[in-house]
Amino acid sequence: MTILLVNDDGIYAQGLSSLVKKLGEKHEVVIVAPDREQSAVGHAITLANPVRIQKVHQDGNFFGYAVSGTPADCVKLAIRVIMKRPPDLLISGINQGANIGASLIYSGTVSAATEGTMMLIPSFAVSLDTHRADADFVPATEIALKIAEKILELGLPEGVFLNVNVPYIPEDKIKGFKITQQATTYFDDFFERRIDPQGKIYYWMSGTMVEINGSENSDIAALRDGYVSLTPVRYDITARESISMLKNWFEK
Amino acid sequence: MTILLVNDDGIYAQGLSSLVKKLGEKHEVVIVAPDREQSAVGHAITLANPVRIQKVHQDGNFFGYAVSGTPADCVKLAIRVIMKRPPDLLISGINQGANIGASLIYSGTVSAATEGTMMLIPSFAVSLDTHRADADFVPATEIALKIAEKILELGLPEGVFLNVNVPYIPEDKIKGFKITQQATTYFDDFFERRIDPQGKIYYWMSGTMVEINGSENSDIAALRDGYVSLTPVRYDITARESISMLKNWFEK
Repeated sequence: MTILLVNDDGIYAQGLSSLVKKLGEKHEVVIVAPDREQSAVGHAITLANPVRIQKVHQDGNFFGYAVSGTPADCVKLAIRVIMKRPPDLLISGINQGANIGASLIYSGTVSAATEGTMMLIPSFAVSLDTHRADADFVPATEIALKIAEKILELGLPEGVFLNVNVPYIPEDKIKGFKITQQATTYFDDFFERRIDPQGKIYYWMSGTMVEINGSENSDIAALRDGYVSLTPVRYDITARESISMLKNWFEK
Repeated sequence: MTILLVNDDGIYAQGLSSLVKKLGEKHEVVIVAPDREQSAVGHAITLANPVRIQKVHQDGNFFGYAVSGTPADCVKLAIRVIMKRPPDLLISGINQGANIGASLIYSGTVSAATEGTMMLIPSFAVSLDTHRADADFVPATEIALKIAEKILELGLPEGVFLNVNVPYIPEDKIKGFKITQQATTYFDDFFERRIDPQGKIYYWMSGTMVEINGSENSDIAALRDGYVSLTPVRYDITARESISMLKNWFEK
């Protein structure tokens, strides 16, 4: 099977190389990743600028393709330019830091899986719930491999992909898989005001995610309880349950 | 009522100024828009760089705030830094060019309405189905005003916003409002390969949107048939209909 590997932390990220090593034992792996970190880029694509593809080597061997663009650009270029035939599976990650709740909307990792799904490739995004620089990606890699094998065997429903989050706890403490929903959250954003050396004001954005009406079935709850969270996600964002009410408001 | 106006075409865009003029007659309008075009940025936010806010004047009068960031940044800065209290309504647009089908995923215009909704502000995005440089925004402005009044009166369901698309046809030919679903489409992307003056390869992305299983209830069909398309959109992207099947696959 051919697996396309993408991420948003950049082609040199540890989470990506951990995945490559393991998947490469059994499958053909093609790596197409941003040439630098592209976190929180959402589903941006590069239309106003040209994009470039550069071959990257590691220890003298060809490793993958670095793209001067976003995760969504990487997926499009992989399928339209780089690969001779579409991959059997797309994996985006392993991201450093969980993608849960409102983060799904901002996440470059998730957007690559969205793009793959729109291009009819079975896809999943996988993130590890830690920002530690010395994070151990091995357990999350084993889990990603299990999910990959399952999807290669069973497929995925049309228009749906999986958003996977792995808790950062010892492997033997992980309780199993839990199918979850995206937690309802918001970001309590904070803008820190600073003055530059020219005396001009600028702002740094930071924010804490706050859960609203915490649900037991949420991705946040699963991680907290020691489960691997699997959220099925679709890119059709129509709020079907509101259609009849709005028909009353606007069509009459 | 206080209305926050945002867009992705930039603070100098025609669609924005048309909306300001009309809304300003009856409401307090605050404009916070990108300092340059930010199309196809999806739901990107600026974390790796600082953002700046600049006051913009037109004909000697204060017009609005230009932000060195994305549409989602604009919404966050408007509510957290610029405005004393949250607006009663957020309008994103009027975008030049329709936001239908898969475009919703890439659209900066739509992302501003998503961000507003996540911050609990009733929101809608509005786009005009033309790329003509001399486009007449007056009919679309009248329509946006009608929708604004309706939402200010009735509110919107929690977590839901409207994605509005106006056909570019004579005003008296518009047949009314239609509540629609996001069309199922994909982009038939094309990468044009070029050589730069240094002899290096680069690519320009372009693409045509292709509808899959065209539906009568889609946003695309409504525009084609001469209706204003109103799609209710939610930011919770969980594919609930897939949960029980996945429980069988992974939890057992």
